[in-house]
Amino acid sequence: MTRVVPLLALVSGSALAASSSGTANLLFSLFWVVLAASVFGMIASKLGVPAVVGQVLAGILIGPSLLNLARPDEFLLSLAELGAVFLLFMVGLETRFRDLLAVGKEALLVAVLGIVIPLALGFGFGLFQGQGNVSALFVGTALVATSVGITAKVLQEMGVLDARFAQVILGAAVIDDILGLTLLAVVSGLGAGESMGAAQVALILGLSVGFVALVLAVGIPLIHRFQPRLQNLSLARMFNVAIVVGLGVAALSTVAGLAPIIGAFLAGMVLAEVKDEVEFESKVHALEAFLAPIFFVVVGLQLDLSVLGTPTVIVAGLILTVLAVIGKVVGGLLGARSMGGQQALLVGVGMVPRGEVGLIVASLGLGAGIINGNVYAEVLLMVLLTTVLAPLALRVLARRAGPEAIAAKA
Amino acid sequence: MTRVVPLLALVSGSALAASSSGTANLLFSLFWVVLAASVFGMIASKLGVPAVVGQVLAGILIGPSLLNLARPDEFLLSLAELGAVFLLFMVGLETRFRDLLAVGKEALLVAVLGIVIPLALGFGFGLFQGQGNVSALFVGTALVATSVGITAKVLQEMGVLDARFAQVILGAAVIDDILGLTLLAVVSGLGAGESMGAAQVALILGLSVGFVALVLAVGIPLIHRFQPRLQNLSLARMFNVAIVVGLGVAALSTVAGLAPIIGAFLAGMVLAEVKDEVEFESKVHALEAFLAPIFFVVVGLQLDLSVLGTPTVIVAGLILTVLAVIGKVVGGLLGARSMGGQQALLVGVGMVPRGEVGLIVASLGLGAGIINGNVYAEVLLMVLLTTVLAPLALRVLARRAGPEAIAAKA
Repeated sequence: MTRVVPLLALVSGSALAASSSGTANLLFSLFWVVLAASVFGMIASKLGVPAVVGQVLAGILIGPSLLNLARPDEFLLSLAELGAVFLLFMVGLETRFRDLLAVGKEALLVAVLGIVIPLALGFGFGLFQGQGNVSALFVGTALVATSVGITAKVLQEMGVLDARFAQVILGAAVIDDILGLTLLAVVSGLGAGESMGAAQVALILGLSVGFVALVLAVGIPLIHRFQPRLQNLSLARMFNVAIVVGLGVAALSTVAGLAPIIGAFLAGMVLAEVKDEVEFESKVHALEAFLAPIFFVVVGLQLDLSVLGTPTVIVAGLILTVLAVIGKVVGGLLGARSMGGQQALLVGVGMVPRGEVGLIVASLGLGAGIINGNVYAEVLLMVLLTTVLAPLALRVLARRAGPEAIAAKA
Repeated sequence: MTRVVPLLALVSGSALAASSSGTANLLFSLFWVVLAASVFGMIASKLGVPAVVGQVLAGILIGPSLLNLARPDEFLLSLAELGAVFLLFMVGLETRFRDLLAVGKEALLVAVLGIVIPLALGFGFGLFQGQGNVSALFVGTALVATSVGITAKVLQEMGVLDARFAQVILGAAVIDDILGLTLLAVVSGLGAGESMGAAQVALILGLSVGFVALVLAVGIPLIHRFQPRLQNLSLARMFNVAIVVGLGVAALSTVAGLAPIIGAFLAGMVLAEVKDEVEFESKVHALEAFLAPIFFVVVGLQLDLSVLGTPTVIVAGLILTVLAVIGKVVGGLLGARSMGGQQALLVGVGMVPRGEVGLIVASLGLGAGIINGNVYAEVLLMVLLTTVLAPLALRVLARRAGPEAIAAKA
């Protein structure tokens, strides 16, 4: 671990000594990220605002467009990815599959409507702006994908992850990811000048759905069968087992065309079946407590405000934000209407944050030359506003709904 | 976090879809690393062997030269670095500064002799082989630096970190790092054709020593003063404070020309002053339990056995290993002779593992064209053998020394 450091480069002037200042940079930027997460998370909590809001804003503050203390480099992006994986793993650990299954119909409806409506709105707005078909489709796709990590953390912080509306959000997020990634594959194909046949689309969909079904259908009986053996493991060893299962399913889920966070969530749900009998959750929680805030700050780091050039871009971004909110809220209100207006509204608002997912779609489109810099900036503003405002609204609405509503268990 | 995945590239064939399979690779290699660490750590423990030995061997097994399931890429190297930082932070938390100070004289002697003797032996061997002066100096330097992480973990596992001989090892490791990095700066300068004046050397040394003194002289009174406030913090918030302090001092130590693990160790020692009154250690432990095994496996990943070409290289590597062992053991025996032969031998053996530090020196030399591929391979074999055999010997010797010897508190 001993590496030659910047100072030595100064002193000796040798290129050799300068060659590995990487370690120092890495630790400094991680230090700033963790410091910013702690301080802004604390300030947010004191203000009665979800900590994630403080942490995303902290990321913008220390990021390239303002203080420039940290940049979203490969290491921080990878660590953030790991943070999201452990966050959803932890959320899975707090979720019972049977509760999720109980709201399956609502979740499916919310997910489908929450994809169709924003896609249509985004596509329409893109065409209205004079973008080409594929560019407009990319904007629509960027409006589709919910960042479930943001909402899940807010719900976890409020202690209402097991409420019925929260379960609908989690279930819808899984389906949203399956459909959203399939859509992205189709749209990316179009971007590369290839149109995908129905068989290909069915294959992608089938693999994703099959993977989710397989993990749950095989994992849940298996974990119950191994429960007596797991109970004999020491805490340290059971922690290892949990981590290996979580990372393994997360990695495998990417092979099935899903986001790793979905695999982590599924793995968490499988392990949740035995967590009352087998102790390991507290250790996973410590890991998550370190890594998840890094994820939120890194979302902020990626929100480079300097791309927001002209007033036209800002106005277009605001319109896109309104469409993004309408799309998910209407999707929630319609899809979960059987639960009553108040709960359905909570579901809709919970689906609003686009977070890192919208950014990835937009970056892919920008990198491939499908959307231009202005369109990218509009999407970025939409991501910023939905990510910061939805948690605030969710908290206010959940408080207003009162304890009975949020305590309605699945 | 949603990224287009390898499967989509297969299905759609688009370059765009293939562009971010990085996430999947990252999770898979991390999965293999964590799985290998768990399984081989467990097997080692069952065999009565230190877990680190199993984990380093696991790294060789899954690494590029054998199964090729993971490679020491930037992400794994960075995560390993973080693992070493948290390991030494944890070791610091289990160390009282006053205990370390009590063995200061022995530690200084062990460190100085454990540098001078291996340096002379390595330099002499290099010249004997017909290497140039600077190349031979690099070999000597690679023989100097102890990988304290390996030994510290073995001592922690055996529950003897607070034994007197363990404190000597930790103290010597700090001094070893200060002197070793200064030496590396001088030798690197020579490699770049610049010779360093005494004033420059004094500046490097002074900065390192000054930093250590400053952290302890300022940190310890400060932490006692803040203790009442820290006691009022929640566990989650105190955990944040600890992490921020640990990462901050680790990052700053690189500016002073020290390895980040030294800063982490110092920060841990400062926080150890209040850990009986303020609870946070269990959370740091969970982080360390996840990250430290990654560090050990990644040391193994870097041991690419395929470079061990000819029998000549292997024989030379074995001789180098013998010299490396003699250098540190004699250094320990002489430096800690006031503690009696048995304890002094434990100290000497504890200083033997070269681990990642020897590799870094050798890689720097190879990269700068100062040493050739054969010399690199010889150093690599020396690193492998000292890293794997020293923990085994340490455990056997500590057992043989009996409980009174290892229980002799500082």
